[in-house]
This record gives sequence, structure tokens and C-alpha cells, in this order.
Amino acid sequence: MTVPRVIAVGSSPIGETALPGRDLFSVALTEAFESLPTPSSFIDALYVGNQSESYENQIMLGTILAEWAGLRELPAIRVEGCAAAGGLAFNQAVTDVATGTHDAVLACGVEKMTARGTTDTINALAAAFDRPLEQRSGVTAPSQYALLAQRYLHETSATEVDLARIAVKNHENACANPRAQFSGEISIDTVLDSDYIAPPLKLFDCAPVSDGAAVAVVVSPEVANEIVPDAPPVAVTGSAVVSNNIGVAERNLTRITGAETACSRGYDDAGITPSDIDVAEVHDAFTISEALLTEASGISPGGLGWEIGKSSDSRSAGWEVAAVNTSGGLKARGHPIGATGILQIIELYEQLTNTAGARQVPDASCGLAINEGGIADSITTTHVLEGAA
Amino acid sequence: MTVPRVIAVGSSPIGETALPGRDLFSVALTEAFESLPTPSSFIDALYVGNQSESYENQIMLGTILAEWAGLRELPAIRVEGCAAAGGLAFNQAVTDVATGTHDAVLACGVEKMTARGTTDTINALAAAFDRPLEQRSGVTAPSQYALLAQRYLHETSATEVDLARIAVKNHENACANPRAQFSGEISIDTVLDSDYIAPPLKLFDCAPVSDGAAVAVVVSPEVANEIVPDAPPVAVTGSAVVSNNIGVAERNLTRITGAETACSRGYDDAGITPSDIDVAEVHDAFTISEALLTEASGISPGGLGWEIGKSSDSRSAGWEVAAVNTSGGLKARGHPIGATGILQIIELYEQLTNTAGARQVPDASCGLAINEGGIADSITTTHVLEGAA
Repeated sequence: MTVPRVIAVGSSPIGETALPGRDLFSVALTEAFESLPTPSSFIDALYVGNQSESYENQIMLGTILAEWAGLRELPAIRVEGCAAAGGLAFNQAVTDVATGTHDAVLACGVEKMTARGTTDTINALAAAFDRPLEQRSGVTAPSQYALLAQRYLHETSATEVDLARIAVKNHENACANPRAQFSGEISIDTVLDSDYIAPPLKLFDCAPVSDGAAVAVVVSPEVANEIVPDAPPVAVTGSAVVSNNIGVAERNLTRITGAETACSRGYDDAGITPSDIDVAEVHDAFTISEALLTEASGISPGGLGWEIGKSSDSRSAGWEVAAVNTSGGLKARGHPIGATGILQIIELYEQLTNTAGARQVPDASCGLAINEGGIADSITTTHVLEGAA
Repeated sequence: MTVPRVIAVGSSPIGETALPGRDLFSVALTEAFESLPTPSSFIDALYVGNQSESYENQIMLGTILAEWAGLRELPAIRVEGCAAAGGLAFNQAVTDVATGTHDAVLACGVEKMTARGTTDTINALAAAFDRPLEQRSGVTAPSQYALLAQRYLHETSATEVDLARIAVKNHENACANPRAQFSGEISIDTVLDSDYIAPPLKLFDCAPVSDGAAVAVVVSPEVANEIVPDAPPVAVTGSAVVSNNIGVAERNLTRITGAETACSRGYDDAGITPSDIDVAEVHDAFTISEALLTEASGISPGGLGWEIGKSSDSRSAGWEVAAVNTSGGLKARGHPIGATGILQIIELYEQLTNTAGARQVPDASCGLAINEGGIADSITTTHVLEGAA
């Protein structure tokens, strides 16, 4: 099997923007391609992660983005698994290169969430839950995650303050990330004083609504050596997709077992253990998600994931573990749903090429991305990226 | 490369039904699995083609269908390319098996189109067209295809009567297909006397709105030999996906060049020429589509695709070519958008295993499926299946 490489990345502004989705994509693509010495014609295929057609009443994004990229007569396919859509697109690109199906694939993610009103946006997000069993009872994403948080605070010694610390850490990290939606620090009181959305989760426990697009160029080592022979190599050594069931009511609320399996498979692919990971982007749609996924990934011991909020460098939490969500995470870098999985890859790429500026983790050589769709691990994608450092 | 096999197929009733999408899938899956001597646990991955979340406000169909199939902790991914979604799901399944990524993959398609009112359904279908350039001018699928038909009737000697004959043929074929939405013959006058939807296309030139689901089980030869050692093998020898641009205004209206390329790639994979094809399912969302794709595929000479309507066995049209849309096609078998690409595979499977009953093409050993999304070939999938006959 070929070990795929990432040779270029790009993103649009993240947040509420005036641009439609396809133009957000153009901005992201331009950044990626302008970093390369070659025109786009070496691309063989395109995958795009996109959560919802409803924001812009637009399907067929595969064809649209391929055309906007100047690419014709190639496979151009939209994949969807709610907020894991970007991770799915990256997984498909990586798999195609790993198997020799294609030599160079664009992995894209796009979401234009602010095109409609709040109620429509909430309804579009609730489409991730089973309609007969869950939507009809009125569940939304915060209310589902609040169930996990309630149980977590009951089972562990964590408090609402500890969850707040995760938000504070991620906003602090985002201050050093030029791609981030938010650029200001917040305090614990900012979180604690914000309105409850679904107790114990408050407004500042929740990732924002964001527009945004992101692109990663995934190629074979041969193509990488041809196009960017002197670039520090970033290899994708692990890739896994694992579905769990749809309904949170039938799952262990505080053991995210689908994510555990996805991480385990990704680590096996790469031949690593959690202690090898220097930097991790984990899916913090809510503060509770970061605590739970830090545990599911083995980065923290069970029941102690909440301690990740104690420091922006979680190594000082006392475990020999990765820095988590150095980008600012979904919470502060922003969460344009279908683009999020690719934005995670971008952060790992920058950390592994030593281009992460003020948020650089020294000597980062191994990165993990966990991207999830639905409620917690309805579907999880896990990727391990390794650099030369 | 491994040559994938199809070992089982199944479909739900097609037409307006009381069942939600996930239950339509269960019906299709039950048929497929009850034809096998093994439980479903040998399945490694699942892809589902689904056009629109808007009919049931439901995304995350990968996870939902996997759970409904009793499958956990495997990749379960929705793919979308409007009406080519089913073909994309089949392509992904075939690619995964061909490359050894997985040994056994469920290729699924689901659409529940009748859940909402007519206006909402039309709007959901129009989402396949570019929003800024096309949707805002009020285009719908029939109005776009009418442009192609207008030009085709101008350039060739075909008339509205000739297009009507294609509808008559497909309804006649559907009478012999127990899976078909419509079971009665129609006359040329039925078509000609029906209301214009977008001239020259009349109601009976258009495929219907349909609920439906379909499943094909795609496995490696090793798995096939283990599970169904005595079954007649049906091999997938060609598979291609080709995107064209989004807007019909920038294309040749009567040469479906994306489909030409997709067919050419599929034929190259399989090492065949059009004259080897015994039976073809081509995407007749409108009668004009069948005429144009019969030409694009090389089944008919250029400008003569409309002659396909002269006989249910197009060989008697005077060319040495395949029987086209023996299932009844989208026109009469029905067109549950995301399921259509898999329903085409089901027809080929039945023809190649000599189980097509009264519509059996004698000695059929090579089948072609062309599935399209958007306007004509915005995206095309082509598959070549070969049997032992």
C-alpha cells in the first residue's frame, strides 16, 4: 500500500461571511494551489464533505467544485456523515491514493451555514438525528450533548467549571491561529455567565455556527516528490471510519466506543500508541466532546479527560500526552460543519511542517484528528499524520 | 486488481408507499439477504446513494442504514450526486472490493420522494442546478431537458412521436417486471395527448416521482466462492465516474460528452466495445435522455438514438446492439432518485443470471448501466457487468 502525502492545504475565512459556498471553496483552493508550483491539472479526483443541502438549496457539489477548480471529466463526489463529512472526504481521498486508484485527490469540505435563519439552521442540524425516534421528540444537538454532559458530571469529579476551562483553553489557542473565527480570549466567567442552552451546557460550551471551506491536496509519494521535492513530507499513516448507531439513548453516554474503535484502527494502521501523539485535533462541538474524546483516544486516562482544560499544553496536566486543539478547535477556530474535518487536517499539516507560528508544538512529528458526525460517535473518522520532525 | 462480484440484490416496492426511507431499505435488504445462506455479518462497509435530505429531513443515512442492517463499527457513508447517487454508491463499493480495501460491501440507494408536497419536491430536485446561475432563473429538470429535446428534434429527423415511442416501449417492458412502478401498457396517443410539461416534453415523456430503495451485495471472488459457490457469477468488469460541468448552457446539448467519456472508460476497463453489450439500462429520466445516451454509449449511431423506440428489442432497429431498458427504465420501472443507479444494477444482475422472466434477453452475457445526475451528464457513472452465459 502507498502511504499518501498531504502537499498543500487552504481555507477560506471562517465565520459569517458574504460568500456563497462555492466561492468559499474557491478561496480555500486558491491558497492551496498558490502554494504549489504546478497548475491543478495533476488532480485525478475530488471528494467534498458537505452536511446540508438546505442552507443554499444546493446539491451536486462534487461537480460544482470540480468545475470551479477547472477540473473536468474526473470523479467528483459529495460524501455526507453530518459533521464528519470532511473526515469522510479525507478518508476517501487517502484510500484512493493508498490503493493506487488515483495519484492525486482533492479532499474538500464546504458549509455555508448562515444563508438562512436560525430556525432553519437548527432544523438542518437536527436532521442528523433519527426522525421517527428522536427529531419528533424535539431534540437538538445541544440537548443531546447535554445528556452526555449531565452523566459525565455525575460519574466523574468534573464540574461545570472544568468544562468551562476547555472553552477558555481553546479560545486562547485560537488567538494564535490566523484561520480562527474568534481572536479574543475569554475567561471562565465568560463561560459560566453565558446563558444555558441545555444544562449543563451554556452558550460558551458550544461551537459556533460558521461559514467556511477547506481543502487538502492528497497525493502519492511519487507525485509529491515530483511537485514539491524539497517540502517536508507529511504522510497519512492511519485512516479509519467507524459508524456506531444513530440513537444516543442506546449507547453508553460516557464511553465513546465508536471513537475508541476508530482510534484503535487508526493507531494500528500507523503502528503508534497514544503516547506517540504530539498534537491532536479532537471534535469539540461542545466542551464535553473534547473531554470524552480525549479519553476515547487514550490521550487521557478514563474519567480524566476534563483535565485537558487545565492548560493549553495538556502535557502539563501531568500525563505524557498530546496538545489538544491547538487550532482553537471547533469551539474557537470555528465549525463550518462539512469543512471541519479538513480544517483539523490543516492544523496537523501546519504543526507537522513547523509552520504553526505562535501555536507551534515543539518537535511535533505525530498528529491525530478525530472528526465526528451525529450525536458523539454516530460516525467517527480518525486520521494519523506523521511528519519528518 | 480483484474483479468484484455481485452475489445478491433486493428492492422495495417502487412508487408511492406508506414506508419511510429506512424501512424501504429494510425491505430491499431483506430480499437480498434472504437469497443468501449466510447472515449479514460478512459485510465490511456500506455506501448509500441518496439525493435529498429534504424529503424526510434526514441526513446520516450511512449510520442509520448500517444500524438497520444490524451492522456496527464499519465505514457507512452516504454519497450524493443527485440522480447518480446510486451509481456512485455502487462505484465506491466496487472500487473498495477491486482494491482489496474491503471484501464485502453493501451498495445501497434510498429515496422517499412522496413525503412532502409537490412544490417542495420540485424545489428539492431543482437543487441539482447551480443556484446563482440557474435556480434563480426558475429552471426545473423538465425545462432543462426540454432544451436538449428542442435541439435534438431540430438537428435530427426525430419527431415528438419518436420520443413517445420510447415511453411506450419502456412501459411495455415494465409490464414484465414485477419490480416496476407501472404495470400497464400505454399507447403513443397516451403520450401525445398528455399535457406539456416543458415543450416538447409531455407528462408521459417524464419519469415519475417514486419512493424506493435498492441493495446490491458486492464481494470479492473469494467471498463469492465461499458463500454462493454454485451461483452463476456476475462480475463487475468496468466502473467509471465522470463529472462534467454544472450548467447545461455551456455544453453541447445533443452530444453528452461526459457520458461518452464515462462509457469509454468503462469499456476500456472491461475490454469490450458497444457491440458486445447485450442489455443496457440507460438513464431515461426523460425520453430524450434515452435517445441521447443510446448514442453517447455507442449503442446506436449518432443522431439515431431515437430509433430505440421502434422496438422493445432494439436489435430489430437494424443495428447490432443491445436491448435498452428492459426493466422499463426510469420511465416505467420508476425513479426513486438515489435508488435508481442500484435498480439498474438489479436489472443487469437478473438478465445475466437468466432470472429476468418474461423480459429475459436470450444469452445475455454483457450488461451496461449508465446513471446520471444533474442535467444530463453533470455527473455520469458507467458500469459494465458480465455473466457466464
